[in-house]
Amino acid sequence: MTAPALDFWFDFASTYSYPAALRIGALAEEAGVSINFRPFLLGSIFKAQGWTTSPFNLLPAKGGYMWRDLERICADLAIPFVRPDPFPQNSLLAARVALVGLRESWGEEFCLEVFRSQFGEGQRIDTADATSKILARLGVAPEPVLKTAQSDGSKAALRDQTTEAERYGIFGAPTFMTADGEMFWGNDRLERALRWAKQA
Amino acid sequence: MTAPALDFWFDFASTYSYPAALRIGALAEEAGVSINFRPFLLGSIFKAQGWTTSPFNLLPAKGGYMWRDLERICADLAIPFVRPDPFPQNSLLAARVALVGLRESWGEEFCLEVFRSQFGEGQRIDTADATSKILARLGVAPEPVLKTAQSDGSKAALRDQTTEAERYGIFGAPTFMTADGEMFWGNDRLERALRWAKQA
Repeated sequence: MTAPALDFWFDFASTYSYPAALRIGALAEEAGVSINFRPFLLGSIFKAQGWTTSPFNLLPAKGGYMWRDLERICADLAIPFVRPDPFPQNSLLAARVALVGLRESWGEEFCLEVFRSQFGEGQRIDTADATSKILARLGVAPEPVLKTAQSDGSKAALRDQTTEAERYGIFGAPTFMTADGEMFWGNDRLERALRWAKQA
Repeated sequence: MTAPALDFWFDFASTYSYPAALRIGALAEEAGVSINFRPFLLGSIFKAQGWTTSPFNLLPAKGGYMWRDLERICADLAIPFVRPDPFPQNSLLAARVALVGLRESWGEEFCLEVFRSQFGEGQRIDTADATSKILARLGVAPEPVLKTAQSDGSKAALRDQTTEAERYGIFGAPTFMTADGEMFWGNDRLERALRWAKQA
């Protein structure tokens, strides 16, 4: 019998993926479930629905609620929250770099730092400069990583990842997928997804 | 000091309002919070956003997920679930009748029965006949109630209720509003809303 596993699908621009990313490590360890970080581009999926930006921007009442809800969630978790501007940020480069890191040893820590930087400090995460600073903080030399991240292979890897998400019917983030194909959407479904992964 | 209170805003066609309605009584009693049932018409609010039907129908991937998620939630709660067809049903008459009942003694039980009938048994809830059967099950004579529910006063009461929901920025259901104006959206926010209502 293999250890239970859960795929954690997220976009760096996704607001509720921030608390999910910061919570998932400890909860998964407690549950004895191994987590696969799967960054993808939600923007491509939104575009296919005719949306040109985040639905939180397209629907102001829902967007205003989301920011307040996220603020409350972060306060409950005692994690910092600063609303970033602009929102959403282009998550393309960060996602490509994350895929490079997830093949090495620093991928998950890079993902957490991108989320912390964006939603905990309100920083930009969409430039080579911002990405380099995060890499440097992790003790990873930025230049070769950025070069690899912009290679044709890395671009194709992220496209494939996004295509796979679309094929599963993923329509938002964070989304948790169990090995037996059960889908759970939203930070508030993380605990249920871990229980499912354990029992499946 | 007055006892803590929470407004429970819902539309009878709202899927996640079903588990919320069945859960709220016991949880509120445990928390020492009094609940005001506030049926309104989400359809009017959706229409103002240019939607002609439920977003779960407009976005098939999200809709498919929602039905599976609701099925899991009901299984976890050990409450029955049958997917109703058609969906959504017109909730106008049920909401008007509910407002009559909420001024009398049988309002909350009527609301629970409408939800149980629709999502627990897959029945129609959008006809005078269906509404009459539910009233009769509660020992309430249907004819005078239906007559009152279709009066100008009852129609205006529901319109006012929906206008009030819109003014608060309510964009979905279930929504829980505390006395100090804090909004919580979704069945999964019920426990947090009750804690907020207690502490406010």
